[in-house]
Amino acid sequence: MIKICVIGFGNVAQHLIKAVNNSDLLEITQVYSRTIQTESNRIVLDRFVNDLDLIKDADVYIISVTDDAIRHISSELNFENKLVVHTSGSSSIENINSKNRRGVFYPLQTFSKNKEIDFKEIPICLETENPEDYKTLENIAKCISNHVFNISSPQRKALHIAAVFVNNFVNHLYFIGSEICKENDIPFEILQPLISETVEKIKTLEPQAAQTGPAIRNDIRTIDSHLLFLQNENYKNIYQILTRSIQNHVKKL
Amino acid sequence: MIKICVIGFGNVAQHLIKAVNNSDLLEITQVYSRTIQTESNRIVLDRFVNDLDLIKDADVYIISVTDDAIRHISSELNFENKLVVHTSGSSSIENINSKNRRGVFYPLQTFSKNKEIDFKEIPICLETENPEDYKTLENIAKCISNHVFNISSPQRKALHIAAVFVNNFVNHLYFIGSEICKENDIPFEILQPLISETVEKIKTLEPQAAQTGPAIRNDIRTIDSHLLFLQNENYKNIYQILTRSIQNHVKKL
Repeated sequence: MIKICVIGFGNVAQHLIKAVNNSDLLEITQVYSRTIQTESNRIVLDRFVNDLDLIKDADVYIISVTDDAIRHISSELNFENKLVVHTSGSSSIENINSKNRRGVFYPLQTFSKNKEIDFKEIPICLETENPEDYKTLENIAKCISNHVFNISSPQRKALHIAAVFVNNFVNHLYFIGSEICKENDIPFEILQPLISETVEKIKTLEPQAAQTGPAIRNDIRTIDSHLLFLQNENYKNIYQILTRSIQNHVKKL
Repeated sequence: MIKICVIGFGNVAQHLIKAVNNSDLLEITQVYSRTIQTESNRIVLDRFVNDLDLIKDADVYIISVTDDAIRHISSELNFENKLVVHTSGSSSIENINSKNRRGVFYPLQTFSKNKEIDFKEIPICLETENPEDYKTLENIAKCISNHVFNISSPQRKALHIAAVFVNNFVNHLYFIGSEICKENDIPFEILQPLISETVEKIKTLEPQAAQTGPAIRNDIRTIDSHLLFLQNENYKNIYQILTRSIQNHVKKL
């Protein structure tokens, strides 16, 4: 059994605890939370502590708190030379206090409180300072997910930025699409099959090969008529910049 | 039986022919193609014509050719006062020659030649000049799809623009995400579950409610560090404009 102490009880921590609990090879020793939890998460109800000094011996300490709190909470731990990792996509491994052996255990997914998630399908990105610790994290990760990757801090930063493009910005384009529909009394659901197919396509094709539309066809007449139609200056601006980006990219092919 | 003549033999026409052929209530009378097809599509092998003057009587004539060719081919038809429709998302109903009763039969999906598609799930957008013709198109559409909508030409234009945002532009953001991964030796597949979840979310949430990330949190520190990391001026520009758009929108909430 690998003994795991979870520090923090936010969305990521709660999903992680459930996943760890489903494995016979892993054991949650304790869960630290500033406010003792009574109602939620009966799995670990008897193992909550609200004082860092009460933390007992474990193989790994997983800090799952806000980015800003990682430095502080890792410095407050009253032990040394243990394996302490965080779960953040946007924090460096350096944010963990160096009195312990540091690592990162980052599950790359958007977690929502009330939505069940199949952890087996979530990619877990690992980083450690030494190879033995990597082995430990890898053993844990493979118990709860089928997709485990060795990702350095600079790579994780790049990954986080790429995630902003394919998740945050994509969702914003869905928003703009839904606004254009609303303004014209069109049910947004008409676009759902197209949205799903856009994702399906890149499971087998490179995004570059999957590109369609007036920009890549260099269909100036359609592009001009779209720009004329768009009254919202912001949408028009985004339309122009993304069209130009598609066209400039095609030239480079 | 509703008798349908298909004019054109591109991607959309071929998928449409298959779907029509699966219905007991619909019949393909003829398929016009400039070059007579011999190998492909055995379903209608005996019904090809390559001369518009050979077209026989039908209830509906579906023109499925490139946008630019609709005007010309509809003017070349040697009959009048029949129901003639096109399948284009970006052409007005007016592009069909007015000697016939005009309509639009637009299946909103990206069709690829070698990919089977479940037509039942494809939204079909209909428009006609008079109510009886609408009934005819609706009867046909409901035989092949579960999702039929009455969409005017201005609405169809708006829909096409919205589709550019949620399909073409979204795919380009996937491309940028994949490029950032490549440049940093990260397998793009790490992002696949996140990409899928982004789409799953808006099946139950409005895109506005599903928005996450540094822009909507107004997390200036993360945004600045991302901009510093991005060397490509084009990516940086897109990052800034979409971030600003998310932030300006949030203020309006």
